[in-house]
Amino acid sequence: MNHRLVIASLGLLFVLLSGIMLATAAMFGVAEFFEVRNDPDPSSLLALCITGVAGALLGGTAWFLARRGPGYLGRREALLLVGSSWLLGAALAAAPYWLWARLSSEQAAHPFRSFVSCYFESMSGLTTTGATVLSDIESVPPGLLLWRAITHWLGGLGIVVLFVAVLPGLGVGGKRLFNVEAPGPSKEGLQPHIRETARWLWYIYLGLTVAEISALWILTPMDGFDAVCHTFATMATGGFSTRNASIGAYAATPAVDWIVILFMVLAGCNFNLFYLLRQGRVREVLRDTELRAYLALLLGGSLLVGAAVWWHGQPITLTTGQHLAASAGQSLRQGLFTTVSVQTTTGFCTSDYNAWPFLAHAVLILLMFVGGCSGSTGGGIKVIRVWVAFRILLAEIEHVFRPHVLRPLRLGRRPMDTDLKLGTLAFALGFIMLFVFGSGAVMLFEQLNPRLDCRYSSAATAAVATLCNVGPGLDQVGAIQNYGWFSAPSRVVLSLLMVLGRLEVFAIIVLLSPRFWRAD
Amino acid sequence: MNHRLVIASLGLLFVLLSGIMLATAAMFGVAEFFEVRNDPDPSSLLALCITGVAGALLGGTAWFLARRGPGYLGRREALLLVGSSWLLGAALAAAPYWLWARLSSEQAAHPFRSFVSCYFESMSGLTTTGATVLSDIESVPPGLLLWRAITHWLGGLGIVVLFVAVLPGLGVGGKRLFNVEAPGPSKEGLQPHIRETARWLWYIYLGLTVAEISALWILTPMDGFDAVCHTFATMATGGFSTRNASIGAYAATPAVDWIVILFMVLAGCNFNLFYLLRQGRVREVLRDTELRAYLALLLGGSLLVGAAVWWHGQPITLTTGQHLAASAGQSLRQGLFTTVSVQTTTGFCTSDYNAWPFLAHAVLILLMFVGGCSGSTGGGIKVIRVWVAFRILLAEIEHVFRPHVLRPLRLGRRPMDTDLKLGTLAFALGFIMLFVFGSGAVMLFEQLNPRLDCRYSSAATAAVATLCNVGPGLDQVGAIQNYGWFSAPSRVVLSLLMVLGRLEVFAIIVLLSPRFWRAD
Repeated sequence: MNHRLVIASLGLLFVLLSGIMLATAAMFGVAEFFEVRNDPDPSSLLALCITGVAGALLGGTAWFLARRGPGYLGRREALLLVGSSWLLGAALAAAPYWLWARLSSEQAAHPFRSFVSCYFESMSGLTTTGATVLSDIESVPPGLLLWRAITHWLGGLGIVVLFVAVLPGLGVGGKRLFNVEAPGPSKEGLQPHIRETARWLWYIYLGLTVAEISALWILTPMDGFDAVCHTFATMATGGFSTRNASIGAYAATPAVDWIVILFMVLAGCNFNLFYLLRQGRVREVLRDTELRAYLALLLGGSLLVGAAVWWHGQPITLTTGQHLAASAGQSLRQGLFTTVSVQTTTGFCTSDYNAWPFLAHAVLILLMFVGGCSGSTGGGIKVIRVWVAFRILLAEIEHVFRPHVLRPLRLGRRPMDTDLKLGTLAFALGFIMLFVFGSGAVMLFEQLNPRLDCRYSSAATAAVATLCNVGPGLDQVGAIQNYGWFSAPSRVVLSLLMVLGRLEVFAIIVLLSPRFWRAD
Repeated sequence: MNHRLVIASLGLLFVLLSGIMLATAAMFGVAEFFEVRNDPDPSSLLALCITGVAGALLGGTAWFLARRGPGYLGRREALLLVGSSWLLGAALAAAPYWLWARLSSEQAAHPFRSFVSCYFESMSGLTTTGATVLSDIESVPPGLLLWRAITHWLGGLGIVVLFVAVLPGLGVGGKRLFNVEAPGPSKEGLQPHIRETARWLWYIYLGLTVAEISALWILTPMDGFDAVCHTFATMATGGFSTRNASIGAYAATPAVDWIVILFMVLAGCNFNLFYLLRQGRVREVLRDTELRAYLALLLGGSLLVGAAVWWHGQPITLTTGQHLAASAGQSLRQGLFTTVSVQTTTGFCTSDYNAWPFLAHAVLILLMFVGGCSGSTGGGIKVIRVWVAFRILLAEIEHVFRPHVLRPLRLGRRPMDTDLKLGTLAFALGFIMLFVFGSGAVMLFEQLNPRLDCRYSSAATAAVATLCNVGPGLDQVGAIQNYGWFSAPSRVVLSLLMVLGRLEVFAIIVLLSPRFWRAD
């Protein structure tokens, strides 16, 4: 194991995060100087500056001391780097929240006075989950809200680069699942190839971000700040909002809903497809199995949820507290927004779906597990894995009465090999087991240390919503609730579930394996 | 597909069941004549006689008309026969319950007046589940109670013969999973070999049954009738009792608990092991992976559940309604009985574990999913499959960072082949999916047709408890509750879950596959 290289890379990551923190603070300082925006809480900018300087010093020192290691980034180094990036990066990103709550004298009972809550919030940001410990988001100063949205955006970018460029380039998991090939191997070897792929991913991500900011800013009454923050949360399929009512605060403007729905759907697509589109390979994109299944699930789910809400007939409660009659059109619109938000694992809310009937809940929870496409910023098991698992189950049923008929399962044009099949089923099963143990652990901690009488539906949906990086769950962690009431051990467990789900389990679990650390 | 052979075999099964029904009625008729037992409700005996005669005529006719088919029982015929045996056999076995409720003028509001309830009850018997629709069991005449216990015993015998002799002999599933070899292939070919295996299984099953009846009758104050009925329910890991308080009715006699615990543990063992024991191959038995894991789970689970109940400190409520202080000894005894009863999927109750703390519930539910050993009368996923699935998951984790290291997983001394691995994971995943869809369907039907406000914990544990053939679940289907309050569609779904779980899913699911029915 090449520890020096891992430490040097982590150092660079810290310098990068700190630089962005300082830039955020500087931007708000300038805005205040020119009186563009009023009342930026000075202690929030101070918190960002202190963390930025300290983080840059720490990261710079680590990089300086470890920089002269050999240059080879192997499979195990990559896994260690990925795991520790999220685990330690979240600690750095959490510091401004905590410092602000400590510096600002008015925040005597603020949730951010607990570092575990701050870690939960920043892990929720970097893993693009969107679960929050805050009950009153609007009381947090805009500097921190922007930083909160930036953690989403960085996390989303990091995940796409990781799963589309880095890990497949190193031959770790992932690539075998892609129906679409990454751009062919370049002649200059592995690392330039990774860099090349990462570059066009960055262009696509940036392009989509700029497009959504412009659309929200120009076509809707949203101001620039909200447009930027909500775009960051959409593109990362995160779900942090700057408003207590989430996207529901703009319920009066249907255009906001439609723009956000469009970009949520795009963010949940495999980013390889955008590359193919740019190359003009439209037919390949339209024929992509995962894309088709993904859109079919979104459409079918929306119709089912909308129909259930309409049939149920109870008035729809918006996140603003307003009540609407469940007309067919309104039910369908709310059903569509919620289904897209939940399956892409974004977690924006326009209505309090906690009051919806069981069928709607069941569909939403199942779609949480399915999640977005591989190579997207969406979480969950991923559409293609679910599709493969279903195909294997069907094949196994035929295997019972026709053991000698061999029908190779295909993914696009390539037959699936046994390793891929076994890996997919193991992933799905491992994911479910993590959900079971996670919700069990939360329930247990809540019984040992009760702050609120935690119901099992809350513990279970909290576990799904964090493991699948959705954000809101049902019941006590529903659309208009938050995670601040969980005991500290539960918040730690839920933070771990976020990172386990985000890094597709194994990148974190391997760190627990003694064999991983054994020198050889 | 050789339909004639399947129909002829089903005819014989009907004749056999009808014969046993008539014998039961005759036995009670004789007992009444000699005044050995008082008040056998004549309409219950009449119901048994009518069904017996009708069933024998129906079965005999079917056999007579179809008997001249070719003699070859292939894989598909076996699967069709197995599936239809349970589905149709349960209908025949349900008829006496229904006829009795209709013939007896006093039973105007009895649950047995609904045929769906009778079907549920007899499916619960034949699949050795033990879930009941009855709230007042003791009001049912002894003739029907004995018939109810007999359905358990026959179902248990059928399952062991099926999974240890018939299916492996035909090369369908199952055998590949056995660590222990069935007795070597005989020279006379396949069918005599199956018959030979079936014969010693019958001896073992009968031997254990006689042993438990004797123990209960001689060593405890239980009368002969209760001893027979409870033994039938124990050996089949069923759980039907003749008492409203289940085995808890004998709480004053600890010997009953201990005898029942011993035989539940034995019934949950792979019956191949008893054969090895008789051959004196003790060392092989002691080295059996599944047996060790099974006993370790029983022991560990009992200690955890006992500790949780003791730590919780709330008084233990027995099924009789009596309250006991949760002393360490009492907690451990109740924890042991309940854990053994639940993991072997028997479902006898001595205490109302619904009031126990979350940790106890979590352990019990997980052990329900695990279930007994393969080749036993226990249900669930089976210990060996869970063990194999865990080993595969661990291997997959290592595979992430060391893709080139091949470590063949072994089962006993043989390496597992990929087919076996894939089949095991697919089974576990399919089982979980059935649970999810089953509990979802029940919840949905209960919302459409509410008789009682069904909570999700009730629907979910009802689905686990039927799919894993346990019997009682939690909440509204807990130890002292019953399944009579479910709407008819839910009772149908739960009956299907029982037979799906009992026949290890695929034997029933294949019947739904269009390819299964296609001639070739």
